Amino acid sequence: MSHADLLADLHTPCLVLDEAIMRANIARMDARMSELGVTLRPHLKTVKSVDAARQVIRNGSAATVSTLREAEVFAASGVEEIFYAVGITPNKLPRILALRATGCDLIVALDSAEQARFVAEASRMAGDRIPALLEIDSDGHRAGLIPASDAVVEIGRILSDGGADLRGVFTHAGGSYEAGSEAALRTYADRERDAVVTAANRLREAGLPCPVVSVGSTPTASFATDLTGVTEARPGVYTLNDLVMAGLGVCGVEDIAISVLATVIGHQRERGWTLVDAGWMAMSRDRGTAAQPLDQGYGVVCDIDGTPIGDLVMIGANQEHGIVAPRPGATTAAPDLPVGTMLRILPNHACATAAQFDGYHVVQADGSGDLAYWPRFRGW
Amino acid sequence: MSHADLLADLHTPCLVLDEAIMRANIARMDARMSELGVTLRPHLKTVKSVDAARQVIRNGSAATVSTLREAEVFAASGVEEIFYAVGITPNKLPRILALRATGCDLIVALDSAEQARFVAEASRMAGDRIPALLEIDSDGHRAGLIPASDAVVEIGRILSDGGADLRGVFTHAGGSYEAGSEAALRTYADRERDAVVTAANRLREAGLPCPVVSVGSTPTASFATDLTGVTEARPGVYTLNDLVMAGLGVCGVEDIAISVLATVIGHQRERGWTLVDAGWMAMSRDRGTAAQPLDQGYGVVCDIDGTPIGDLVMIGANQEHGIVAPRPGATTAAPDLPVGTMLRILPNHACATAAQFDGYHVVQADGSGDLAYWPRFRGW
Repeated sequence: MSHADLLADLHTPCLVLDEAIMRANIARMDARMSELGVTLRPHLKTVKSVDAARQVIRNGSAATVSTLREAEVFAASGVEEIFYAVGITPNKLPRILALRATGCDLIVALDSAEQARFVAEASRMAGDRIPALLEIDSDGHRAGLIPASDAVVEIGRILSDGGADLRGVFTHAGGSYEAGSEAALRTYADRERDAVVTAANRLREAGLPCPVVSVGSTPTASFATDLTGVTEARPGVYTLNDLVMAGLGVCGVEDIAISVLATVIGHQRERGWTLVDAGWMAMSRDRGTAAQPLDQGYGVVCDIDGTPIGDLVMIGANQEHGIVAPRPGATTAAPDLPVGTMLRILPNHACATAAQFDGYHVVQADGSGDLAYWPRFRGW
Repeated sequence: MSHADLLADLHTPCLVLDEAIMRANIARMDARMSELGVTLRPHLKTVKSVDAARQVIRNGSAATVSTLREAEVFAASGVEEIFYAVGITPNKLPRILALRATGCDLIVALDSAEQARFVAEASRMAGDRIPALLEIDSDGHRAGLIPASDAVVEIGRILSDGGADLRGVFTHAGGSYEAGSEAALRTYADRERDAVVTAANRLREAGLPCPVVSVGSTPTASFATDLTGVTEARPGVYTLNDLVMAGLGVCGVEDIAISVLATVIGHQRERGWTLVDAGWMAMSRDRGTAAQPLDQGYGVVCDIDGTPIGDLVMIGANQEHGIVAPRPGATTAAPDLPVGTMLRILPNHACATAAQFDGYHVVQADGSGDLAYWPRFRGW
């Protein structure tokens, strides 16, 4: 059945997922991690859907999350070991302990002595050794300890001696999203590895345990060549891919698994504009490609079958209006798209755009004549 | 009861609404519209909550919406006359007619002959004269007809002769959000008025009806001085206000009714950074103040009582991490905010930030010792 036939009756704007593309993305990353000899602990903040997650983690039972809501939903769906990769706070410990009491091996993140102290204290009080990974800074982008610093050992000891479970170290090279070349991405991947391996060695030399040595991000996982000493990687956006990843060379535009289905609502023909019913409420305000050599506006505009139309992008967005036009400098004119024409728009950032919707309308990989619907969740 | 006591047990990040501020914002706009002699048809895309809408439209039964979901929810809550202000498409007509059949006077928007033809045809087929407002372009910002153009009369006649209900004209000066001065805002307001009054006169001179002459936007409604010939205004963001409105001089920072409650999760002290558990998933990616003289980053950081802390703003955001620091050029150092400290962050754009949450935790205007919870809805 053609995409046009499958999608024609949907209310727009809505989110379409091409399952065959997602499966290929997952298989590619699975194979890559196997080659590099590390475990894949996929970050589920991108898909935020139990149905999608079942495919992402079908070869394992470990995952990464960015909210306690994600931890609770995925634990309930059967994921056995979950790393909550945002710095732990005292007010989140009751939910952490409650979820651990259900049998989920939930692991927390921290990078300070004050956090190590309250995690250790909570472990003693609850009689439950809360596992923790120390965050290591590999690129000055956000959080984390200096890899070779004495603080790594000091904090590791507070946890280990205080009754918590020092599980290891992790880093995330968030700066890799702004890398300008494949060589720069390889450098970010090397820095991630060097940072966590250095920190792991400091812990081990001090007689402390460090079973987990974890790196993360789709760009670094895609370009790493040597992960010696690393035990696991935590990419997430590779499952769906997006224009930022395509701009980095991580994937092609044809590897983007999600798009926003929209309907033409009007024109300003003398300006070459076509207006659609997907604005920033549907696409999100993310303009991640604005900093890349090829600025894709609010998204690349495709026909209903998912094929990009010439140089057409969403050049502007209001809340529920998108302005579609050839990109600046394009040599092809805008095609005439009558009111009512359905289009599909590829997003800058899969995590941000997907979050604007309550679920995926899934074009199934088995060529089924029906769409599936996979609910998403949100909140904290 | 202090805000600190009221809010201390909430899970962060979450959305806090100060009802007293919202009520004052509503009362101010109600009074202003009365003085100018126009009906207020508030845009409910900002609050997206039946509880909040009850206060916004308590003096009337007419509203504006940006999605059919909003129309359906607010109609079910008792709003009798709703203007759906996004260009109509054929695939939306079944829902339009179904909602009208429930007794709601739902009005559609259009700006082309092709739309007028299918709306007229649907009216004849259904035996229901669908009311429509013609969109008029007052600032070249998005959609709409040239005010004095023959097309206004042509399209009005297709509707009126074809069996639809030509209800009038409307415009929205979206460009006013980028105005650089109060004088510029007054000019936008004058242009809105001139555009719709000109178009209304063209219709009337041609013997066509035009009972509704509608302008819209919080900035123009706040600075208009003369709305002669206009019958109604459709502002929305004034209900909650935000940093973009404060930057335009529409309100003060103290008039912003919503904030995101967040918890400190860590530090990079040598950089002066405090990290919080509200990233762009909570704040949205909206950076509306980036184009204003005072760039507020991803938001102004307040203590738990809602008072801004020195020059502290959210200078960066990842999905679930916000980086808080003094704004560039600030002369005051960042205060020490231990892990676990709760903060409130004022948003760039109320519509975008509020949309990231499922409801408002409401500090009630009556000084109640309890928080109320007002659910929001989303989707299309």
